[in-house]
This record gives sequence, C-alpha cells and structure tokens, in this order.
Amino acid sequence: MTETTSPGGPAGIAAPDPGSAPTAQPRPGGLPDLRRVGAHPDHWYPVALSSQVRGKPVAAVFGGERMALYRGASGAVHALEDRCAHRQVPLSMGVVEGDALRCCYHAWAYRGDGRISQIPYLPKGVGRPPRGVRAFPVREAYGLVFVFPGDPAKAEATALPVLPEYGSARHRTMTYSRTVRCHYSFMHENLLDMNHQFLHRGVVGRLQPKLLGYEADARSVEARYLFTHGGGRRNRGAGLLAAEGIGGSDSADVMTIRTEYPYQTLTLVPEKSDHPVFSLWVAYVPEDAEQRTCHVYGLLMIEKPRVPGAVHLAWPLIRRFTERVFAEDRMAVEAEQRAWDEQGEDRNHEVFPLILDVREVLRSNGVPLSPCARPCG
Amino acid sequence: MTETTSPGGPAGIAAPDPGSAPTAQPRPGGLPDLRRVGAHPDHWYPVALSSQVRGKPVAAVFGGERMALYRGASGAVHALEDRCAHRQVPLSMGVVEGDALRCCYHAWAYRGDGRISQIPYLPKGVGRPPRGVRAFPVREAYGLVFVFPGDPAKAEATALPVLPEYGSARHRTMTYSRTVRCHYSFMHENLLDMNHQFLHRGVVGRLQPKLLGYEADARSVEARYLFTHGGGRRNRGAGLLAAEGIGGSDSADVMTIRTEYPYQTLTLVPEKSDHPVFSLWVAYVPEDAEQRTCHVYGLLMIEKPRVPGAVHLAWPLIRRFTERVFAEDRMAVEAEQRAWDEQGEDRNHEVFPLILDVREVLRSNGVPLSPCARPCG
Amino acid sequence: MTETTSPGGPAGIAAPDPGSAPTAQPRPGGLPDLRRVGAHPDHWYPVALSSQVRGKPVAAVFGGERMALYRGASGAVHALEDRCAHRQVPLSMGVVEGDALRCCYHAWAYRGDGRISQIPYLPKGVGRPPRGVRAFPVREAYGLVFVFPGDPAKAEATALPVLPEYGSARHRTMTYSRTVRCHYSFMHENLLDMNHQFLHRGVVGRLQPKLLGYEADARSVEARYLFTHGGGRRNRGAGLLAAEGIGGSDSADVMTIRTEYPYQTLTLVPEKSDHPVFSLWVAYVPEDAEQRTCHVYGLLMIEKPRVPGAVHLAWPLIRRFTERVFAEDRMAVEAEQRAWDEQGEDRNHEVFPLILDVREVLRSNGVPLSPCARPCG
Repeated sequence: MTETTSPGGPAGIAAPDPGSAPTAQPRPGGLPDLRRVGAHPDHWYPVALSSQVRGKPVAAVFGGERMALYRGASGAVHALEDRCAHRQVPLSMGVVEGDALRCCYHAWAYRGDGRISQIPYLPKGVGRPPRGVRAFPVREAYGLVFVFPGDPAKAEATALPVLPEYGSARHRTMTYSRTVRCHYSFMHENLLDMNHQFLHRGVVGRLQPKLLGYEADARSVEARYLFTHGGGRRNRGAGLLAAEGIGGSDSADVMTIRTEYPYQTLTLVPEKSDHPVFSLWVAYVPEDAEQRTCHVYGLLMIEKPRVPGAVHLAWPLIRRFTERVFAEDRMAVEAEQRAWDEQGEDRNHEVFPLILDVREVLRSNGVPLSPCARPCG
Repeated sequence: MTETTSPGGPAGIAAPDPGSAPTAQPRPGGLPDLRRVGAHPDHWYPVALSSQVRGKPVAAVFGGERMALYRGASGAVHALEDRCAHRQVPLSMGVVEGDALRCCYHAWAYRGDGRISQIPYLPKGVGRPPRGVRAFPVREAYGLVFVFPGDPAKAEATALPVLPEYGSARHRTMTYSRTVRCHYSFMHENLLDMNHQFLHRGVVGRLQPKLLGYEADARSVEARYLFTHGGGRRNRGAGLLAAEGIGGSDSADVMTIRTEYPYQTLTLVPEKSDHPVFSLWVAYVPEDAEQRTCHVYGLLMIEKPRVPGAVHLAWPLIRRFTERVFAEDRMAVEAEQRAWDEQGEDRNHEVFPLILDVREVLRSNGVPLSPCARPCG
Repeated sequence: MTETTSPGGPAGIAAPDPGSAPTAQPRPGGLPDLRRVGAHPDHWYPVALSSQVRGKPVAAVFGGERMALYRGASGAVHALEDRCAHRQVPLSMGVVEGDALRCCYHAWAYRGDGRISQIPYLPKGVGRPPRGVRAFPVREAYGLVFVFPGDPAKAEATALPVLPEYGSARHRTMTYSRTVRCHYSFMHENLLDMNHQFLHRGVVGRLQPKLLGYEADARSVEARYLFTHGGGRRNRGAGLLAAEGIGGSDSADVMTIRTEYPYQTLTLVPEKSDHPVFSLWVAYVPEDAEQRTCHVYGLLMIEKPRVPGAVHLAWPLIRRFTERVFAEDRMAVEAEQRAWDEQGEDRNHEVFPLILDVREVLRSNGVPLSPCARPCG
C-alpha cells in the first residue's frame, strides 16, 4: 500500500530528479507485457443490455468465447456456448421455444443448462449423440446482463457490483455501451491518469487537475484529484455534470477515480458539497481472444437537480458532452493499441506512479493469454 | 455398400440408443480433416457461363489456380494459366487477336495451347525466352465452360456429366452461378441431409422429410426422402416446383439426392407420377487455394406444364423461391465455415449415417491440400 | 558498364537465338529476390508536399518508419518519430506550439530535435523520464519536404536532386503525389521498358518505340528510345506534351529515361529540337515496412510554348492525359505485385537487357529487408 502526493504544476525536465520511489520504476524486463494479460474470467462481466435480450437470441462474447443469450418463457436469461454441438452453427441464429433454444439448421433443441432436449430426427442405432454445450451463469442487474465466463463453481460466491444509486429515486442513470478497439488496460490507465485533460481542451476548457493523493493495494488503486477550472471555453454539459446549480464558474471539485478489479468507478464531489453529484461505474469487457478490443459498459448515475424536470432538459446536453469526451478518449486509446500492434510489445515509459501501480493490479489479477491467441508476427 | 432405413419422427434423447452401425461412428482421430481435403482436379469443372466468354478474356479460377478464358476467332474457348510468362501480369487483362491472346503490358502473344507466338520487340542475343504458359483442356456444354484442372492426359477419357433433359424440348433450364464462402463439402452435406428443412420453415412451411432409404458406394451416396407437407405457409414457387398442377395441397413427393463425385443431383417425383417434375444438377468449384470458398454452378431442369406458356408465367416465381431457399442455405453453410475457421478444425458431431458416408466419399475421392495452402494458425 | 543496341522490330520466337549476352541471363538463383530489397535509407526522400505542412502536424512514412512532420514558428519543417516517448500515441495527432510539438494526450512537448522540452505534470521522485524521440534531417525543395531516413551523419554530405528547370521562368511544373500498391522496383522497370506502349494504345495510339541504345553503371541505367507515331488515335494532351507546336502528326522524338539511384528521370527531345520540351523527375518512396506499397512523387517540368497563355489552356489537357497514362501503368504494376504476393517470389523471365541491368542497380544499391518485415507465408 502506498500513499503519496503529487507536487503538481508543470515541470521542465532540464534536471529530472533521479528519485527512487519504489512504485515508479519503469516496467522491469521480467514482467509479462500488460497488453498480453487477459481479464480474469472469474468475475461477473456485462455482455449485453437487458433490453437487447427479448424474443430473439443475441450473440455476445467474452475474450473470444462466443455466447448465445436468450430469454426463455420464464423470463430468465440463459447464456449458451454459441455453437451447436452438431455442426457448430451459432445458436444465436436459432429460435426460442419456451425455455429452450432451437438451432436454426437441423432444429436441435437445448435447455438453458446447455443440455440437448431434442434432436427431431435422431435415428436409432447410431453412436451416442453429444450431450450439449457449455452454459454460463447469468445474472441481470442495473439493466445489464452479466455472465460469469470463468469457473462456474465460483459464480455463486462472487458478488455483483453494488450500485445503490442505480435504483434510488434521487438519481437517474445514463447507460453507455460501445466497442473500443484497445486492450482494456488502456481504458483503466486513461481514466486514472487525469493529466490527460489536454486531450479534452476543446470540450472542457483548461482544467488543472491536481493529484491530492492516492492509495493502492493488491486489487485496487484509488486516486483523488482537485479540479480547478482555469478559464477558456467550457462545455455546458460539463457544467451541468459538475454542479447542481448550472453555470458555477470557478468550481474546485474533488474527483475520485478507483480501479477495483475488474471494474472502475469515478465520482465527483463539488466544492461545497459532501456527496457526489454523479458517479460513474464502468466495465471493460474483452471481445476477441487476443483482447485487443473491449466493449465498454458504463452507468452514469446523476443526482437529480432540485428543480423538478430540470434533469430532463439537461439530459441531452449531458449525453452530448460525455459522448464528445468519450470520442476523444477513444481516439487516444485506439492510437495506443495501434502503436502496440505495430511494435509487437509495450514500450510505454510511464512516469506517473499511480499508473505504474494500476498496471501491477491489472497484471497480477489477470490471466496470461494463451499463446495461440497471439499473432504470428 | 450400405442400405438402411431411417426410423423417422422426432426422438428425445433421454435414453439415446448406443447402437453401433459401422457408418455412424464419429470421425475417427486418424482421418484427415474433411475441410482440408481438396476437390480432385481430374474432373471437368465448370468455371464460367458460356455467355460470359465473348470478345474479352475472362478470369476464372479452380482452387487457387487462376485461368484466363478466351474465345478465339474459331469460336473455341481456351483456358491459359492466368499469368504472362514474362512478368506474371494476368493474361485475362489482355486482348484477343484471332485465336491468340495478347498480354496487355508488353504485348506478348499466346496460342490457345499456351505457347508464345510472338514477342514484338525480342532482342537478339538474349537468353532463351520462356516457351509459354500452362493450358487447360476446355469443353463447352449446357451453357457452361468446363475445364480439366488436373492431369491433361486424363481429360479425354473423363466424361462430362450427361444431362439429357438439358436439351429436351419438354424441359426448360434455370441456371445458377454464385460464390459461397465455404468448403464444398458443406454444400454436399447440406443438400443430402434434408433434416435441415427447419431452416426453410419461413419459405416452405412445415415439411416432414422422411428418409426412405439410401445407398452408398465408394464414389456416391444416394438418399430418398418422402416429403409430406405438414401445413403452414407454403410458397407458391415451391408448389409450382412440386407439381405440374399448381396448388396441389397435400402432396407426398419423393425426393432423391445423389452425390456422385464430384457432382450432386436432386430430383423430385410427385406422388402420382412416375418421372421427375424437375431435376437439379450442381457442381461446387473451389475458388481459393485453401478451398474455403466455392463457386456453385447449378442447372435446374424443369418439365414444362401442359398448359402452353404457363412455364413463362411461373418462371419468375420459381426463381424467387429457389433464391430464397438458397440464401438460407448459404447463411447456414457460411456459418459452418466461420466456425471451422475459428476453431481451426472440424468439430462436427454427425449423427446421420448417410452424412458420415458422404464425408467418406468426399474424403477418399479428394486430394490433400498442400500444407502451404493452410493458414498459419 | 554496357552499351548495346536493340535490333528493334517484332520477332517471332520460332527459333529464338540462344545468345549469351552476360546481362541477359535470367535471375540466377543465388541473388536475393529484388522485391525483398529495401530502398536504401541514406538518400533524401520526399514524404510530403510543402503545401501540406501548415498549421497542423502531418503524418508521413518511409518504409514503415512513421514520422510526424510539422512547421514550427521559424518556418522550418521538422520530422520526428511519430510516437510519443510516453505512450506511443502519434505525435502527428498533436499540436504545434512555437517551434515545439505537443502530444495530444498528456501534453508532453518536444523540440524540433526530438528532445522533450516539457512534461507538464512531472512528479518528483520518479525514475528518469525518457529523453525524447528520434528526429530526421529535413530539407524543403521543389515544393516537396525531403527527409533523410538513414544515418543522420550522412545527410549533410548527401546531395538533393538538382532540378534547374524547376525554378526557371521558361518552365512550369506539374506535381504528382499518389500511392501505388507495388514495390518501387516495378515502377523503375515500368518506365525504363518502353516496350509497354501496348498498354497505352487507347490513349497514345500506336507508338513504335525503338531502343537507340543504353548505358549502365553501378548506380544508373540510361536508355534512349526513338518514338515514331504509327497512326491511330492520338490523345491531344500527348500532342501537347510532345511538341511545342500543337498537332505535329508524324513526329519522331527521342525519349531518354534514366534511373539514377534512387530517382528516375525522363526527358523528351522533339525531332527538330536540341533541348527537351519536358522533363520528368520521380521518386518512389516505400510506405510500409515490407515495401509493397510506394508513394510516387513526380515533377513534370514543361517548357512553356511561345504563345503567351497557351500553357494555361493546355494545362488541364496535359493533366488529364498524364493521369490516364498513369492509371494504366498503375493497373499493370499493381497486378505484378499481386502476382508476386500470391507466388511469394519473383518469377519474372525478363528478356530485355537493360531491365536486367536496372534490376542489378536496384538490388546492389538497396538494403535487405529485415526478416520480420516479411510475411509469414
């Protein structure tokens, strides 16, 4: 565990201090490349919005593992390996019948536990047919469908994230779902290192984030920044997000960002308040086997203003603002992934201690990617 | 040779019969992966429609072997290796001059037998120029251009398919030509296993195919199904195809499907008839070297109804119906190929004996694909 | 050094002369494949038009080496390695500040020599940050930005091409810039072997190029052709280029084409003149690491006709004519590259001695491409 304080402010590097804080060493040669570390499957990962899983089955994926999601007659969502045991045609191309899923091709039917319930034409006297396909534990919460891609025996004892604000009458939630073509670790680093506000200068104006301090342990890193607005153009949506009253100009808010494996959260507490005006929960779900692409599911839980109806007026502005910020972040992290792809390895020279710590959290809590998932070159 | 009978009817698999019919064993580990078996080149394969080979040369292909087809002044079609001996620019980009084909780049000219007939600027005193390029035996029949991609010495003795109905005044032929992105074996299996009618439920309604029996030998598998229409929506084009009289509702027709290496045929004999109302002949021609894509050439020979002109009225309906059925088949077989690509091997658990037999026919009559044609991973 | 004369005229090859000119041997097995030879980096290569490098940085590339070009406040253009030392985000996505370039992500700033000038938030007590990124020598001339991708110590002593006509009041220059998907060597061979006029028959009519002679040494090949127009359709732009007076019909012009490593030039001297009516300078700059794509920068310097203003009227016709010729050349050379890609090696059977010589020039003056830049297959 570490607790440190940033000196803040710009620093020329004419005479860089060759300090020796133990967390700040550049990546030692012996460690595995972080971008080849897979997300640990023994967690609950969202793979679809609940609203997407209606009458028809839906294709989902975790780290190259394809799944067919479907909602049976009972209302429960099931997640099966997305390949019929017969000829590997995706079950997500199939048809829901009661609580079963029937393959579109030769009409083999599966139960929610993956067992085959019917082969309509099965001849006698043939070898034993396959028993079924893999099924994944599923839970629905917060408008998301979570699956447990790892050891099913651990699913029961593994907690879903706890988001009390999601259901609270005082809050309203904005949901995000999109694919970003980078390893999930770039997303964690992006959000935790608030020194990247230069990237958003066109949207948020000149922000001066000052690291107040941070804490790290084996599974988490939490950083606190003081945000003071240094003038320049400021987006209205940003103002709406930053304060209950619209237009507070010289705010100094405290932003707390936390990676707690495998999720990430961000909260903003305004200067004269004692509780967050909004909090963000995010999961980065690898899509492909090489985990060079992730799907971002985000829940932005915003405290409703006291003026009734104001949140409805502000909603589209907040959506537009966050989408613009997100588009800029995406541009940067996808550029990072492209550089990694070209170089075939991580060449980051990280100088910000808490980023070195979050890398260690992601590395030590992840799993090695199987060699066959790596590219030839 | 095997003769067996299907029990027909749906069967739950609560207690699957661990029978031991010799043809129904799952793929033994020792056999080569069927999807890595190439189509044997010592057969006549269609590679273009005759109508496509007019004034300009045409690019064609068999299993990665590119060919330039052209029709010389004599009217005969020639097939040359599609690379100029000089700098390997495709001869199909060239110009027909009499019975010769001239490369578009430096104007080298070739005879129909592949020999170079002229190099317009050939300097003296240089090394011996190349003699020419490979030429393939060509035959035209049934509106198709067939080539013999294998050993040319065997071309003469190898018969073209015999399709007497093609030229008969009592029949009219509908021709199909399209690329499907799958190994040709998936196509044979698709057509032979009529238990896949579930795939076409939206087009043909609820069909109950019952296997009457099948025969297999070293080069062929032939299956006979009884088709009874179980109600539900039925496509008009299907009705047109199924009976001379339009609209017969409760038909019980006999469909015979036969793979005779390397071609496939299908005939339909209506309940109260003694001869087919239509017959289909199909060839699946691998396009790429890995043979993961094939070009389907089909000839659907339909008996003309007794009412004069009725076939003209029905023609567009039959076209639309068959295109819809084909689009569904394509969706399924291309999904099978994608699953194979992802898994890098065949994981089919086939339970239908005649499909196991046709796999053996395709495997034992094919050729191994060269290792360099296989993907890295 | 070789001097030889072409016999000219078409030649059937019924009895090819098995001559033994030493330059005309087919590619001996021991030589490296020319299409795997990289362009030598110790030369000045254009990588952008001057007009493209204004307020914002520009991404450029030489053989897979990415560069960020930017014009600082001083007016000078700088070329930095296009990856921030921090997290490898392209510096070409950054912002010019005075003579510095600031990365878009965490706002690290670089001098024109690649040294880091500022890390705005650098904390104390961390390891020594990186010093900067690689910088490339840059020169601007002829409306182009040249970089020196090789050993910077050799840049000073290496001459830029000398193009006196570029600045002359008697000439006007047409500039070309485009990507062609082939190894640069195909471009040299295309221009030097004028026997490919058959390719342009639709644009230039029937041209009879006759090789008058050629010279070769260790670094260059220069060929002289007599061009007589054999009738047929002739493009107006071609006429404009070929003669000061418009429409001279039966011209016999001398075209001189020269590869002088790594550039190429072409001049045309009309029959009754003693100086060129136009001259073309071209550089082929590899883009990707495998050098299977090159960027062509061309300067076509045309003598102004005596009639004032005529060059303005002719300009669009000349542009259209040259673009059409270029499009045909591109079709051919890209077909050559595709054939090479499929075959995995060069199978050219070259019969024209000077092409064999230019291959040797390109091979012996180039550098081997690193094995990792080669494809798996």
